Amino acid sequence: MTTDSRRILVIGIGAGDPDHLTLAAVKAMRRSDVFFFVGKGTEKASLIDLRRYLLDEHVPNPCRVVEVDDPRRDRVRRQDTATYLAAVADWRGRRAEVYELLIRDELSPGDTGAFLVWGDPGLYDGTLGILADVQQRSGMAIDVDVIPGISSASALAARHGITLNRVGGPVHFTPGRRLTEICPNDGGDVVVLLDADDAFTRIHGDGVWIYWGAYLGTPHELLVSGALDEVADRIRRLRAEARARHGWIMDTYLLRITAPHADQR
Amino acid sequence: MTTDSRRILVIGIGAGDPDHLTLAAVKAMRRSDVFFFVGKGTEKASLIDLRRYLLDEHVPNPCRVVEVDDPRRDRVRRQDTATYLAAVADWRGRRAEVYELLIRDELSPGDTGAFLVWGDPGLYDGTLGILADVQQRSGMAIDVDVIPGISSASALAARHGITLNRVGGPVHFTPGRRLTEICPNDGGDVVVLLDADDAFTRIHGDGVWIYWGAYLGTPHELLVSGALDEVADRIRRLRAEARARHGWIMDTYLLRITAPHADQR
Ligand SMILES: C[S@@+](CC[C@H](N)C(=O)[O-])C[C@H]1O[C@@H](n2cnc3c(N)ncnc32)[C@H](O)[C@@H]1O
Ligand SMILES: C[S@@+](CC[C@H](N)C(=O)[O-])C[C@H]1O[C@@H](n2cnc3c(N)ncnc32)[C@H](O)[C@@H]1O
Repeated sequence: MTTDSRRILVIGIGAGDPDHLTLAAVKAMRRSDVFFFVGKGTEKASLIDLRRYLLDEHVPNPCRVVEVDDPRRDRVRRQDTATYLAAVADWRGRRAEVYELLIRDELSPGDTGAFLVWGDPGLYDGTLGILADVQQRSGMAIDVDVIPGISSASALAARHGITLNRVGGPVHFTPGRRLTEICPNDGGDVVVLLDADDAFTRIHGDGVWIYWGAYLGTPHELLVSGALDEVADRIRRLRAEARARHGWIMDTYLLRITAPHADQR
Repeated sequence: MTTDSRRILVIGIGAGDPDHLTLAAVKAMRRSDVFFFVGKGTEKASLIDLRRYLLDEHVPNPCRVVEVDDPRRDRVRRQDTATYLAAVADWRGRRAEVYELLIRDELSPGDTGAFLVWGDPGLYDGTLGILADVQQRSGMAIDVDVIPGISSASALAARHGITLNRVGGPVHFTPGRRLTEICPNDGGDVVVLLDADDAFTRIHGDGVWIYWGAYLGTPHELLVSGALDEVADRIRRLRAEARARHGWIMDTYLLRITAPHADQR
């Protein structure tokens, strides 16, 4: 690191429980000069609330927070993969512009800026990809350091008191929209994130167990587990109610595929 | 919880870096009456050292530590799956006996015992399974609470500054011995743990990128990334040297499968 490069800390803050912050994250927050809060539509308020709470709690000196709106991504349900990737690429381009301006204008060379990333920055989070884009397009000297965080999948497993994998077996992580493409014939179980439309209802439940959790680690936490056949309807109802009440939902689940060949529609 | 049930905290402590401990883990450690350290052959010393350090650092009052040897598992290389599962089941049975005695003899009803689990208790760790066995066979009233931890996979991603998944794509976790069964034709990447015998050398490297890390978060940390074809030999050499020097190795890696169909031998 040269003294005039800008330093960015990408800090995993856990997926909802303020005590899932690591000691490394606390230390990283304390050596940051500026915090960048990038908001996301309806979820924004709650997600930013946790970040503000963590700053109040752990950063004793008044610190500078720069808040910007995240460029909106058009959400179209059940897109094909090409359309989906094009939409994501376009959105990423616009985010890269926003991030580049933030870093150039709000962070002096030699200073340290921080992004507080939900869960673990290594799982289904765009921050690192966008920062790589920024580095490429801007030519700015930026040093990026990542502090891992507790992921929603680890939080889910902990709250249900289970392991994600079974002994010696694989476990697959997938966004909801790719669930039916995942092949669990290897005896592996499946963790689903980012499920916009009840993807679990497209799995034949025979011999499949589901461990579901919403708003994990928060006061609104919901947990359901059981044979998929028996609890799928209840989870669908709970999701719809919760989404109506909060304006958005964050939930994740593990499908434990106990049948030798889980039939997928 | 009734007052005469025994309480067990299964506390994830992260995969090597003492600062990967969460605030929740620190709080949980402070409300534990007894710590159970279960050792594992050659790795034992280093793994137990971290636990002792964490206690010294974060638990102000002198606390009781009960240390036992882990029943040994016969390690046979390249077993078939049935033999492997039988060996694991037998080993688990013997561990359940050990854990049952520990909990019965060293923990009074109403008291809280803690297991400090490496990484995240939800990923490739036997503690929860064994405690479930103990509850079933002993009839003791035991309340188990899990505190998630930073997994070695999250630590790996953070140190390489990458995400485990690619945008919108799946990511598969597998023990080394199952690697060639995993189907990455869904465009997913693969995280490998518990690789006893250089499983990555059995993958055709064309278009495959590897991000490898050993002793992550410790002073002995090693990192290598590159085209699998180009760095596989170097990683194999580093592994052999490190294993010879330390007596054991803990390493994990991500295979980023960029070719449309990664050929597997
Ligand atoms: C953009 S991804 C971010 C994942 C995050 N980086 C992590 O490590 O958990 C958002 C998805 O994570 C899951 N998620 C995040 N926080 C959650 C929580 N507190 N409870 C349940 N699911 C959560 C949901 O599946 C949600 O759709
Ligand atoms: C029995 S599993 C435990 C996994 C642990 N529960 C976790 O969440 O990372 C042991 C395997 O984890 C991986 N591992 C654990 N700690 C590691 C570290 N510090 N560096 C690299 N790999 C590690 C290695 O693949 C090792 O064989």
